[in-house]
Amino acid sequence: MPEQSPQSHQNARSASQSARGPQSAPGPLTVAEDHPFGLHNLPYGVFSTADEPDRRRIGVRYGDHVLDAHTAATALGSPHSDVLAHPSLNPLLAAGPAVWAAVRADLRTWLGYPAIEPFLHPLDAVSLHLPFEVADYVDFYASEHHATNVGRIFRPDGEPLTPNWKHLPIGYHGRSGTVVVSGTPVVRPLGQRKAPTDPSPVFGPSVRLDFEAEVGFVVGTPSRAGEPVPLGDFRDHVFGVCLVNDWSARDIQAWEYVPLGPFLGKSFATSVSAWVTPLEALDAARTAPPARTHDLLPYLDDAGAAEPGGFDLRLTVAINGHTVSEPPFSAMYWTAAQQLAHMTVNGASLRTGDLFASGTVSGPRPEERGCLLELTWSGRDALVLPDGERTWLEDGDEVTISAWAPGPHGTRVGLGEVTGRVEKSPTLHTTD
Amino acid sequence: MPEQSPQSHQNARSASQSARGPQSAPGPLTVAEDHPFGLHNLPYGVFSTADEPDRRRIGVRYGDHVLDAHTAATALGSPHSDVLAHPSLNPLLAAGPAVWAAVRADLRTWLGYPAIEPFLHPLDAVSLHLPFEVADYVDFYASEHHATNVGRIFRPDGEPLTPNWKHLPIGYHGRSGTVVVSGTPVVRPLGQRKAPTDPSPVFGPSVRLDFEAEVGFVVGTPSRAGEPVPLGDFRDHVFGVCLVNDWSARDIQAWEYVPLGPFLGKSFATSVSAWVTPLEALDAARTAPPARTHDLLPYLDDAGAAEPGGFDLRLTVAINGHTVSEPPFSAMYWTAAQQLAHMTVNGASLRTGDLFASGTVSGPRPEERGCLLELTWSGRDALVLPDGERTWLEDGDEVTISAWAPGPHGTRVGLGEVTGRVEKSPTLHTTD
Repeated sequence: MPEQSPQSHQNARSASQSARGPQSAPGPLTVAEDHPFGLHNLPYGVFSTADEPDRRRIGVRYGDHVLDAHTAATALGSPHSDVLAHPSLNPLLAAGPAVWAAVRADLRTWLGYPAIEPFLHPLDAVSLHLPFEVADYVDFYASEHHATNVGRIFRPDGEPLTPNWKHLPIGYHGRSGTVVVSGTPVVRPLGQRKAPTDPSPVFGPSVRLDFEAEVGFVVGTPSRAGEPVPLGDFRDHVFGVCLVNDWSARDIQAWEYVPLGPFLGKSFATSVSAWVTPLEALDAARTAPPARTHDLLPYLDDAGAAEPGGFDLRLTVAINGHTVSEPPFSAMYWTAAQQLAHMTVNGASLRTGDLFASGTVSGPRPEERGCLLELTWSGRDALVLPDGERTWLEDGDEVTISAWAPGPHGTRVGLGEVTGRVEKSPTLHTTD
Repeated sequence: MPEQSPQSHQNARSASQSARGPQSAPGPLTVAEDHPFGLHNLPYGVFSTADEPDRRRIGVRYGDHVLDAHTAATALGSPHSDVLAHPSLNPLLAAGPAVWAAVRADLRTWLGYPAIEPFLHPLDAVSLHLPFEVADYVDFYASEHHATNVGRIFRPDGEPLTPNWKHLPIGYHGRSGTVVVSGTPVVRPLGQRKAPTDPSPVFGPSVRLDFEAEVGFVVGTPSRAGEPVPLGDFRDHVFGVCLVNDWSARDIQAWEYVPLGPFLGKSFATSVSAWVTPLEALDAARTAPPARTHDLLPYLDDAGAAEPGGFDLRLTVAINGHTVSEPPFSAMYWTAAQQLAHMTVNGASLRTGDLFASGTVSGPRPEERGCLLELTWSGRDALVLPDGERTWLEDGDEVTISAWAPGPHGTRVGLGEVTGRVEKSPTLHTTD
C-alpha cells in the first residue's frame, strides 16, 4: 500500500464508518471525537497478549484499543516499520523528530482504514510493559509551591527556598534500574530512620511512605558529550511525556539526605505510566510558565522563546479510588526545556531513553499539593478517606495518578495513568 | 581440546618455555613472576586492533599483552566461549560466580599453551574501550578522612562529620551515561557558580576543577526487587574492581548541592580504568577495615564476617606524571560489602553492569589525600609541581590514578590505570 498523506480525524472516521456502513455496530475504529485517547493523542507503549505473553510489541493506544504498530506498519508497507519492530520504544526514540512526525502521520492515516481493524487489540485484553529502557533518570524539584511547602515544613524558622532555587532548576540523579511500569506492586522499603528524640537510628519498614505526583519527559535523540543543548533545541531531543510516581520514604530520606541528597528514600521504586504521549499531541496544551521573579542566566532565559515552555496538564491523585489532590502542571516554575538546557550545560551528554521528571507537582492551593508530606503537613493533619484516615500510605493502598491536557478543537488529551499498590515489607535476610 | 584443570603460574610458564626451548627469545607468554599483570592478576577489558577498529572484543591482560579471549576460547573449545563473544563484559558479568571461576581457571591454563601465542596482541598496539555497559552508577563517601576534611573545610565551626556518617555509608546516584574509559579527554564543564561575595550567580567554565581518586566495584549477578542483598552475599554479586576518577567541579557543586546533592558538579564525566580486576585476584589483599567507633545495625555489622571486608589497595595520583598523592584504600571506613548491603536494603534491585564507587580515597596523612580540595585545603595551599603551582586543575593537565595490591607469594596485583586530560570548555551555544 502506498504512503498516504495524513488525514484529519474527521475524515479518517468517516472513511472507517462508511466502509462498514452507517448501520453496523461500532467497531474499534469508531472513537468519539472527544475521547481522551482519540486520533489527536495516540500515545505509544509496549504490550503483549495472553496467547503470546513473551512477545512484547510496540502498541499505540486508540480509544479503548491498542494498535499493534509493527504488524500494522509491515502490512501497510511503511518505510518506518523497522523502528517499530522492537520490544521497547528505544529505536523509535532514537530515530529523531522527522521519523516521529512521519510515523505519527502514518498512524493517523492508517486508523482510517478498515483493513487495520485486525491489528487492534482491546485494551483490557493486553498486558502493558515498561515502554522504554531507561538510560539515566533525573528528578527535578521544579514546583515553587512544593519547594516552599517542604522548606516551611523542614526549616520553619528559615527562608523556605534555598538561595539557589530561583537561579537554577535543582535536580539529582535517581536509580534507573528501579523504574517500573504502572501496575507493578511497590514493596514498602526497609531502612534506617532516626527521629530527633531517638538516641540512635532504628531499622525497619518505612513508617512515612509517600507518593510524589510528577510528569516525566523522555529523551529520544542523544546529544554529544561536551555540547550543551540550548533551550531552543528541546523538540529536537525530547520525544514525549509520561506520568511518574516518585515513591518516597520520608523517614529514610530525612536521616540519610545530608549532605549528598536523597538515596534509599527514593531508589526502591519509581513508577511510570505505560503510555508515552508524543510532544506533538500536547501542542494545544503549551502555556507560559509563571512570571519569573529573578533574572535568569542566558542559557535558562526563555523570555524570548519561540513557544511557551509550560504544559497545561491537569493531574489527579487518588488513593484507593478517592481523589486526594488535583495538581496543576501549569504552575511549575521551571520548564522541561530549562531542565534539559541545565542538565546538559556542563557538557553532560543525553542518551536515548533518558528520563527526566519534574519533581512533585504542587499548585498554590492546599488541594493541589502533590504528595502526602504537603497534604498532611508531614503527618500533622490526617486526610480523611472513605476507608479511614491517612497521614502516610498503608500496606494495600493503591495510588493512581492520572492527567489530561487541552487538545485541539476543545478535545482532551488523556495521559495514561500511573498506578501502584503498596505491599508489605519482606522479612530481612540476616547475614550468615 | 578438553578442559584442563588450572595449572600454577610456575607450571604454566615452564610448559611454555620448554615447548619453545630454553634458548629461544622470550615470547609474550614469558611474563616475570613478579609482573603486576602476571598470571595471578588477569584483568578483563574490551579492545580493538588498528586493522579492525570497529570490532570490539573482550581482552585479558597478561604481562604487556592482551589475550583475545573469545578467539582463544573458541579455538580451545571452551564451553564458556559464548559469554566472551561480545563487545562488552556484560554477558560474562551476568553469568555469575561459577562461570567467572571457570573462565579464570581456563585462562590460567591456556596461558601455559604455546598455541595461544597468536591470540595475544601487544598492549601498545590495541585500543581500549569502556569495558562494560554501566547500568546504575552510585558514588559513596566512605573515607572518614575525606569526609572529615571536607567537613572541616566547609563547616569550620561545626562537627566535621554529619550525625548519620558513622551509621550508614552515605551515597548518591551519579550519571551512568557519562562514565568514560581511561584516556577519554574531559571537557572542562560550564556552569553556574556563586561565591558568597557575588551578588548573583555567574556563568562560565568551572574555575575549581578537581579529581577524586576512587575505587569502583562492578556488579555481575543481578538481584530481585524487594530482596535486600546481605553482607555475606557480596561475592555472589560483585565481579571485580576498577579505578575511578570522579571529576568534580567544586564551584558548580558548592552552589547547586543544597538540598538535593551533587548534580552538574559531577555529571559531566566520570572516568574508569580500562581493566576490571576480578575479586579472586585480590584475595591476598583482603584486610580488616578500621575499628568501628559506633555500633552498627545488624544488616551492616560485619564484625563476624567470614572474610575481612577491606582491600589493601595502594593508590597513586599523578598530575602530568608528577605524584601528588598516595591514598591507601585500606583506610576506608565503609567496605564495599557494606555499601552493597546498604544500597539494596530498601529493596532496590541490582542490574548487571551496576557500578558503585567508594568516594574519594583519603588516608590520615596529608600526602594521602585523594583530591585537590583536600590537598590544597580548598585552594589555600598550592601544590608545587615541576611545571608550576596548582590549586585546581588547568586545561591540559593530565590526571592519572594507578594502584597495586599485594598478590599471592609476595607478588603485586596491578590495577589498570585511569587517566584523563582536561580540555578547554566549549563556547556556549546561545538560544535562538
